[in-house]
Amino acid sequence: MAVYTQLTNEQIAEHLEQSYDLGALAFAVGIAQGVENTNYLLALRDDAGGEEKYILTLYEKRVNPADLPFFLELLQHAAKNGIACPKPIPRRDGKLFGECVGKQAVLVSFLHGKSRSIVRNPHAASVGEALGKLHRATADFVGKRANALSLAGWQELYGKIAGRLDEIQPGLEKLVQQELENAAQHFPQQNDLPRGIIHADLFPDNVFFEGDAVSGLIDFYFACNDMLAYDVAITLNAWCFEPRGEFNPTKAKLLLDAYQQQRAFAAAEIAAFQHLLRGAALRFLLTRAHDWLHRDPNALVRPHDPLEYAGKLRFHAAVKDVGEYGF
Amino acid sequence: MAVYTQLTNEQIAEHLEQSYDLGALAFAVGIAQGVENTNYLLALRDDAGGEEKYILTLYEKRVNPADLPFFLELLQHAAKNGIACPKPIPRRDGKLFGECVGKQAVLVSFLHGKSRSIVRNPHAASVGEALGKLHRATADFVGKRANALSLAGWQELYGKIAGRLDEIQPGLEKLVQQELENAAQHFPQQNDLPRGIIHADLFPDNVFFEGDAVSGLIDFYFACNDMLAYDVAITLNAWCFEPRGEFNPTKAKLLLDAYQQQRAFAAAEIAAFQHLLRGAALRFLLTRAHDWLHRDPNALVRPHDPLEYAGKLRFHAAVKDVGEYGF
Repeated sequence: MAVYTQLTNEQIAEHLEQSYDLGALAFAVGIAQGVENTNYLLALRDDAGGEEKYILTLYEKRVNPADLPFFLELLQHAAKNGIACPKPIPRRDGKLFGECVGKQAVLVSFLHGKSRSIVRNPHAASVGEALGKLHRATADFVGKRANALSLAGWQELYGKIAGRLDEIQPGLEKLVQQELENAAQHFPQQNDLPRGIIHADLFPDNVFFEGDAVSGLIDFYFACNDMLAYDVAITLNAWCFEPRGEFNPTKAKLLLDAYQQQRAFAAAEIAAFQHLLRGAALRFLLTRAHDWLHRDPNALVRPHDPLEYAGKLRFHAAVKDVGEYGF
Repeated sequence: MAVYTQLTNEQIAEHLEQSYDLGALAFAVGIAQGVENTNYLLALRDDAGGEEKYILTLYEKRVNPADLPFFLELLQHAAKNGIACPKPIPRRDGKLFGECVGKQAVLVSFLHGKSRSIVRNPHAASVGEALGKLHRATADFVGKRANALSLAGWQELYGKIAGRLDEIQPGLEKLVQQELENAAQHFPQQNDLPRGIIHADLFPDNVFFEGDAVSGLIDFYFACNDMLAYDVAITLNAWCFEPRGEFNPTKAKLLLDAYQQQRAFAAAEIAAFQHLLRGAALRFLLTRAHDWLHRDPNALVRPHDPLEYAGKLRFHAAVKDVGEYGF
């Protein structure tokens, strides 16, 4: 967590004046929570003395500038279709992004609400509903972006850490090999299941609540075209396990039921769901294991624990019937 | 710059509920700019739906908890006497500070405005006026705190880095030795000049502006009892040199004149002013040199450049007449 690019208030004010027709900068605060980009909370004052808040994001090395039109047009489309997400503010030149101190930068609306680190039942239900609404609201979005972290991506990622997984935990190498094999045989093919825009990273950090209801979704930088039910699997893994690792079937049922109020699953999706969950767990286990083994002791960001996802993967591998998830 | 202690929204909300009678937490943002403490910007919602902003500060190791009553009562006193500074919000138990996740914590009012990294003439004048008002507003404050970074403190600090200064720049060791000797002979004694509460760190980072006028002063964690003119010297050094190092006599005259509109200097203060400026430059040269030589390559905070203050010190040592400062 950090601000990677430090901006002076003068640099921020100049960027706003050059690119936007908005109010004057009242204050700017560098936000510590950003993991991959630099974010400033800005308050701009309009002529009537009112204050409007925005987020100024500078893209650091982990976001490919070629993907920016996809991400920002997606946010614009989702916001237009009723999703509470950061809404890019068009620049004076009509573009959604442009340079600030030599980096690509975007200005988006500020979302009210706050993320929860403790998930209770109503939150799991509300996030299921929000995900279903997102899938519906983006059904007619025309942008395309491949998922770099699907099966072929997992295999490639494993190639970079093969032979080292037992450094994290004895037995982890074998688990990953078995699960990669299982995925190669059973993970659904690209066209087996309904596809669309998936968020692909709908963790509690990325969901804001007002009271117990979702008030906003953020961080769309893994969004891509993929199987919709795979997004549900990622989300279920992130929201329906307790801090000590036990699966919570009540939360899973609430999440799945609320999602299905927005979009009913096809029979093929339910049939494939266990393999989607195993694949989703394997994907985060692999990225976390990779980041763990390549962690920079000087880095500002502490890597996530890969073993959390090893536990989830072992749970799913042992499930006998998809009914255990609440179907 | 960093958030040293990460708090969840639940931890923040619980702290507020346990200790204060305020609105519900609307959002919380970790502020990247804090150098020594952890700061969160909070928005609390009152029953009427209005939002009020606060700063929650958790004290990390560089602030001595025994000094907290002094700092917080000083802020309270200054705010009561018309100074725009963070105002501690009394807790339900009547105290100004208390524990949050095992650290001492305080909640203060949020100050509007923004710091400037580019100083123009009207800013130097306005900061001179603000410092004079601070000295007047705190004249009857009864709290006492010794300045650990006065002459004896400089000598002690030099003891920790003696023999290593030429690693920073050849000739720096000799400069520091000469200036310590000069200070021992000529730096005013504690009771030679008018004393009171000094901010002792009124750098541009710590001053907020609305337009060209000072709108707030922050970061009172070096405040102490000392000679008032020494505070003016620290402030002049911080505001009246250009980025390339040249002294700007126009800004100095504006700052001193505006200060004197609030509090006229005694003849003894003007007579001692060059030595106060040399001492003030030596103090920041020594702390910066110390931090530079002891810098931790893993630290989140980059040390300030000690040579900036070596340049200021050399300038002052060569001044022939106090009139050069604008008296």
